[in-house]
Amino acid sequence: MPDLLQDLATPALILDLPRLTANLDRMAARGASLGVQLRPHMKTAKCIEVARLATKGQAGGITVSTLAEADYFARAGFTDILYGVGITPDKLAAVAAVQALGAEVILILDSPECAEMVAARAASLPGPFRFLLEIDSGQHRTGLGPDDARALQCGKILSASPACTLLGVMTHAGHSYDCASIEAIREVAEAERGAVVAAAECLRAAGLPCPIVSVGSTPTALYAEHLDGVTEMRPGVFMFGDLFQHSIGSCALDDLALSVLVSVNAWRDDEGRAMIDAGALALSLDRGSPDENGDYAFGLAADLEGQPLPGRPRVRQVNQEHGFLPGLAASPGIGQRLRVFPNHACSTAAQYQQYHVIDQHGRIIDTWRRTGGW
Amino acid sequence: MPDLLQDLATPALILDLPRLTANLDRMAARGASLGVQLRPHMKTAKCIEVARLATKGQAGGITVSTLAEADYFARAGFTDILYGVGITPDKLAAVAAVQALGAEVILILDSPECAEMVAARAASLPGPFRFLLEIDSGQHRTGLGPDDARALQCGKILSASPACTLLGVMTHAGHSYDCASIEAIREVAEAERGAVVAAAECLRAAGLPCPIVSVGSTPTALYAEHLDGVTEMRPGVFMFGDLFQHSIGSCALDDLALSVLVSVNAWRDDEGRAMIDAGALALSLDRGSPDENGDYAFGLAADLEGQPLPGRPRVRQVNQEHGFLPGLAASPGIGQRLRVFPNHACSTAAQYQQYHVIDQHGRIIDTWRRTGGW
Repeated sequence: MPDLLQDLATPALILDLPRLTANLDRMAARGASLGVQLRPHMKTAKCIEVARLATKGQAGGITVSTLAEADYFARAGFTDILYGVGITPDKLAAVAAVQALGAEVILILDSPECAEMVAARAASLPGPFRFLLEIDSGQHRTGLGPDDARALQCGKILSASPACTLLGVMTHAGHSYDCASIEAIREVAEAERGAVVAAAECLRAAGLPCPIVSVGSTPTALYAEHLDGVTEMRPGVFMFGDLFQHSIGSCALDDLALSVLVSVNAWRDDEGRAMIDAGALALSLDRGSPDENGDYAFGLAADLEGQPLPGRPRVRQVNQEHGFLPGLAASPGIGQRLRVFPNHACSTAAQYQQYHVIDQHGRIIDTWRRTGGW
Repeated sequence: MPDLLQDLATPALILDLPRLTANLDRMAARGASLGVQLRPHMKTAKCIEVARLATKGQAGGITVSTLAEADYFARAGFTDILYGVGITPDKLAAVAAVQALGAEVILILDSPECAEMVAARAASLPGPFRFLLEIDSGQHRTGLGPDDARALQCGKILSASPACTLLGVMTHAGHSYDCASIEAIREVAEAERGAVVAAAECLRAAGLPCPIVSVGSTPTALYAEHLDGVTEMRPGVFMFGDLFQHSIGSCALDDLALSVLVSVNAWRDDEGRAMIDAGALALSLDRGSPDENGDYAFGLAADLEGQPLPGRPRVRQVNQEHGFLPGLAASPGIGQRLRVFPNHACSTAAQYQQYHVIDQHGRIIDTWRRTGGW
């Protein structure tokens, strides 16, 4: 493996270790000051080495977005894994297989129909199966409202099943991503906390157990004023940051730990446009982040040291393996390496099988594998 | 491996073999009637079994979009491989490694600057290296205009290098994707043909060799009136079809060979909306295809047999592992399997490591691996 970005085959995914560590330290300090454990969401990183760093000093729990991730992290010795997407009965056999590796997997659901079905299925598999009820704190994606009687109904169904264990409630305030100000994020954070704490009180009032009260999104984790009544939070993308998180105030440009190393492979004089060897796959199609003019694009171009190029040019168009980088005063030269900071770290990282890890001098010091698929 | 889609873990990528075969047969007949060889683009399928079917009865050449694909297909015995993205000098060592496996790799470039650099680099590597000049036939992405003097200049630089072999010219009429009518596609196809044939004549008039004159896009391949002067075409997505190709008249809904098997994991009565376990990764974020109302979405929902659901509901919103499927009259039921036809087959397939291949009865008869990455 080469030591220098200059010598690495492109496109390649670059992870800045000092920035990653600083981002992790900052969130750990937030968790400590809020009095909650971190159960970091590994859907962005999907990497054992990152998960070990992200759980340092914490209880060790993680969150995953697929059962493939659950299996991957269980094999690496993680024993407390929350699968943060609504379970279906047919997936319980795969969950049992992960638990057979020594992990305890926590599942989520949001309807009595589903609770009945999984309780029935669980009875014929090696258990127990552990559950949180998913609460809707305002995103209106999934989950039951905190005062929806069906939440208690779900809790009773699961508690009545010998194969199932009710562990509490969770919510995800994904609508914090739509906030136009820090003040608005604070309000969403309080709504997130309020909804899940109210749901927990409902369960406890009915005599049901509720040891876990879980919230989580990077913006609300960073800006919540307090998390009274909450036991853990599950932010994920904070580890790397991205242009979208920067645009809503969750990180500085200098915090961005993830970038794509690319090569210039063509130049059009007539348009002042470089073409790069990274397109819809290598950068992803995620147009999550507006620039200063409100336009959308596919990433911010920087030099090898990670400094944005003059005029902060963005990749304005992509095809599968072609990126269009207009707005340059002169050709960078055929073969010139650049780095592109992505709009959405989760989408971009998902296209790669490994990170090339760099130190504070920009030297490549390691290669870390990622998992993927389902 | 289960025999039935009903028993397969979701999300999963499904390939309908009878539809694939029919699509391949149709394009083979087109090539024969136009008098050109097919050099099918494997950037969509990235699969050895599909490549073998797609080259049946042809000269055996294929097109790839990454050097990882070139390596993968060379190891499977393919010996004539066009790498259809502009080469840079630093990639020549990897090309030499692929050629050492027994394949001949054809490279493309579009500037004298690049030609000089690759000729210099090629001299110190085991060659020869083979080249086509990339011509711009109206897409204005990459390539030189057919009357641009720099094309001839590139040809002369390469021909003068003992390490390089000039094989001809190529173009990609990607702007056929923007056409609003079949008539408009026909005009683009004629512009594509005209540009590359003119460039070929230019080279030959200067005494340079030009045995290959290569065009290619699925729409122009299907609607070109003739391809006089062209030797080969490189369509790719025709193998699978997708909603975008359907929207511009390149295939019928019944031709779509690729779909994603998903499970319903939640239901919201208030919005008549099912949630599915396939989101931005499993479906991709490609919003390439307008529906009847001009809206964009992330895929068309169908039943297990591949028949669109009543009202042709589309996945209207996605998060990483969540898909929103509104517009249903009633809940399909938790755990119910559906199939989703993607907007853009290339983007969706790229998220998976394998195809589950089904026969005309919808039974799973095989699993075919895909390659990916760079």
